[in-house]
Amino acid sequence: MNSDLGKFASEAADLLGTRGFTCDPELLDPWLTDWRGRYHGKAVGLASPVSTSEVAAIVELCGVHGIPIVPQGGNSGMSGGATPDSSGDALILSLRRMNGVRQLDTSAMQVTCDAGVVLQTLHEAAAKHRLRFPLTLGGKGSATIGGLISTNAGGTQVLRHGTMRAQVLGLEAVMADGSVLDTLTPLKKDNRGFDLKQLLIGSEGTLGIVTAATLRLLPETSDRLVIWAGLPSLQHARRLLLHCDKIAGDALEGFEVMPAHCLTAVLDHLPDARSPLAQQHEWNVLIELVAAGNGEDLQALAENMLTEASEQEFLDDAVISANEAQADTFWLLRDSISAAERAIGPAMQHDISVPVAKMPDFVETSSPQIEKRFPGTQVAAFGHLGDGNVHFHVLAPKGAKRGEWELAEGKDISAFVHDLVTQWGGSISAEHGIGQMKRDELGRLGDPAALAIMRSVKQALDPRGLLNPGKLVPLAKTDVTA
Amino acid sequence: MNSDLGKFASEAADLLGTRGFTCDPELLDPWLTDWRGRYHGKAVGLASPVSTSEVAAIVELCGVHGIPIVPQGGNSGMSGGATPDSSGDALILSLRRMNGVRQLDTSAMQVTCDAGVVLQTLHEAAAKHRLRFPLTLGGKGSATIGGLISTNAGGTQVLRHGTMRAQVLGLEAVMADGSVLDTLTPLKKDNRGFDLKQLLIGSEGTLGIVTAATLRLLPETSDRLVIWAGLPSLQHARRLLLHCDKIAGDALEGFEVMPAHCLTAVLDHLPDARSPLAQQHEWNVLIELVAAGNGEDLQALAENMLTEASEQEFLDDAVISANEAQADTFWLLRDSISAAERAIGPAMQHDISVPVAKMPDFVETSSPQIEKRFPGTQVAAFGHLGDGNVHFHVLAPKGAKRGEWELAEGKDISAFVHDLVTQWGGSISAEHGIGQMKRDELGRLGDPAALAIMRSVKQALDPRGLLNPGKLVPLAKTDVTA
Repeated sequence: MNSDLGKFASEAADLLGTRGFTCDPELLDPWLTDWRGRYHGKAVGLASPVSTSEVAAIVELCGVHGIPIVPQGGNSGMSGGATPDSSGDALILSLRRMNGVRQLDTSAMQVTCDAGVVLQTLHEAAAKHRLRFPLTLGGKGSATIGGLISTNAGGTQVLRHGTMRAQVLGLEAVMADGSVLDTLTPLKKDNRGFDLKQLLIGSEGTLGIVTAATLRLLPETSDRLVIWAGLPSLQHARRLLLHCDKIAGDALEGFEVMPAHCLTAVLDHLPDARSPLAQQHEWNVLIELVAAGNGEDLQALAENMLTEASEQEFLDDAVISANEAQADTFWLLRDSISAAERAIGPAMQHDISVPVAKMPDFVETSSPQIEKRFPGTQVAAFGHLGDGNVHFHVLAPKGAKRGEWELAEGKDISAFVHDLVTQWGGSISAEHGIGQMKRDELGRLGDPAALAIMRSVKQALDPRGLLNPGKLVPLAKTDVTA
Repeated sequence: MNSDLGKFASEAADLLGTRGFTCDPELLDPWLTDWRGRYHGKAVGLASPVSTSEVAAIVELCGVHGIPIVPQGGNSGMSGGATPDSSGDALILSLRRMNGVRQLDTSAMQVTCDAGVVLQTLHEAAAKHRLRFPLTLGGKGSATIGGLISTNAGGTQVLRHGTMRAQVLGLEAVMADGSVLDTLTPLKKDNRGFDLKQLLIGSEGTLGIVTAATLRLLPETSDRLVIWAGLPSLQHARRLLLHCDKIAGDALEGFEVMPAHCLTAVLDHLPDARSPLAQQHEWNVLIELVAAGNGEDLQALAENMLTEASEQEFLDDAVISANEAQADTFWLLRDSISAAERAIGPAMQHDISVPVAKMPDFVETSSPQIEKRFPGTQVAAFGHLGDGNVHFHVLAPKGAKRGEWELAEGKDISAFVHDLVTQWGGSISAEHGIGQMKRDELGRLGDPAALAIMRSVKQALDPRGLLNPGKLVPLAKTDVTA
């Protein structure tokens, strides 16, 4: 550690105390690698402030010493957005100790909480008041509110309730100069200029550090049913989606798809799992229906919906969960796809979206193109059909060696997939963000006008480039192509 | 006109043709004054491009000559945001000739249209396909989509469907350098960096010129009922709101309040109007219920809701509209408040919001404070209680002379009201925007951190300050207080 870094570390320790700042390599180590193990970095230290004013103070101190800051929540991001680079110059600023639910207003159905509150903790806090927070995802046990906001997270309830952006009524953030933007007052209407919270949402810590948020809550659901359906094609799934949307309306909360080979992989991976349907089908759909408590008869709704769908030949077979345990079992099959795939072998994973109506055509057209271009690979497209968002994984040829194969083929495969998605008018990041993983691809494929605006805004709000450098915002074109 | 302006005018005419550009004072005149007649300006000319590329070209030309641009839609804004200043240096850039509905996708329930499409035209286009656009307001016959987006307009359906921001899935805008930002592809999920469309929404033409948008549509409603209720206080109205929200859920689309003296003024103003209820009540509430077409029995819902409300003493009396004509009559009473007030005498009008739960206390506490401070005045608070947003008008003492009174007292009254609202954690602009009317007040009362960010963003995206100068963005503090 050079003397200037030493001086910074000493001042940071004075500011935050021994629990609030450490340079201990053992304590730092878990936070230097992303949870998928793809990115590794170094850091000058780990700051763990407990209040917004402590965050502001450490940000100011970083400004004085020119120390880059990598904000970190649950460290469960998918794109390396919370992992520092290898220079060792940066400070990891963890929000995990800021984990208080500040206020929960049951009549306004709003909650204000610190950025470090874990999603599952928020779910439990809401449930105590017979309310719910309408966003969930696999990493709910570690993902924090600040991280979810900074990445505009999605999940399995977006179809009805939108992404994280739709849940945020107000937020508090520390800006690059240490000033605090406070929009926590949850006004339903407020047209006092640019909606700055929107700029912070999804900016991955590159414009400011989210320290708290006011979020909307909904009444708890009184009932739910999960349907598992088998269909001959993704086109059928799209027709079934439109049908369900029309019949079930607001009761339809989830619509997930997976191809036959994904289900097979899951059944091989989970020793006690059984296929919900007797026959194998080319595609499987998981549908979740919920009742808002107005006495809807979900069973009748589901039966009516499936009977009509069957008559109109949208599906081949379907089963309705008989109880909560079976509903959970169906979801377990869906949620185990990634783990089952990992057990088989390496894969390049892409989180992409295209306009909802185009998704079946995209998958049917692109999959053989990819499998032809990269012989031996197999495409697995699964996930949130209702959002026009699938996880589009390219599985390695049999026998490919983990690590080596990705290194040899990964970049070409991803570029090929991203080119296709862009040609279809889609997005190379639907819900996982850009981070460090896709930054250069965004620079290569992004709309030049949008990139120019992003660079201008970044330059305006973080002129010295100290907030999460190297993430999200592609460098100017000349640098990217250099 | 000096020679440089003459050169600009000549080049603009070459670019846009005689229908696309004029300096004729008679043709310019109607667009130099806002519709309320409060602001008057001058302009070097009126540009009326017919395409995005023409908008880009004229913006570039303005850049070459350093000509400020005042974008204008229906010229029905409430804050002078579309009226040029008195220098005569600026160009009015009207979007009214860009009035095409580009594409309406019935299965995706989305419409892409030019910025100059009038709101009512959009309503009619959607209705042809048994769909609806879920935002409406008094100026629907003139307000354009571009103007509604640029001011993040509200209206009477915000309670259920949100402001304009919630309707915009994508947009197209010409930036200060003439580049075109195109986010029209309506991806449901897209996390490729900052959500730039959010920055444009509500920016009142100060960051870019909205030329088109993709908007969400909803299925048409199959039925509606309007309820008129009489209550002893605004506190009762708030309790009734919570009750209706709980019982009616998504069927509740409107909840508007007005005090007794507003209803009296309306009844005096409309020769054929009658009070919906036999007795006079301190407060009146208009409730709109709609059916989404799933066979809901609105009549039963309304009766059940009102019976319970009456038993719990949330209201004194209520009547349910017997038919569409009566429903329209109830709305006419609500929509005539402003006109009725104008007929009585001058008033200072404020469009304010506070957290919904605080609104009754705010109105009850602030009204006597204002009436005491400005003897002879009377406060009229009416409108969107469900959004925490009322139109808070201070009526002049009897006999006050229109024009003179506003000039003598207006600024002090508005400052007093804005101070109160700010103390209550509210907004001095709930839905009408800032424009030129409230710019200095925003500078005086706005959060310094937020103002600093706004100035930075404005400087970054419009470094020469040519986009709608003098609107929305307060000058740096030193200039404001100078």
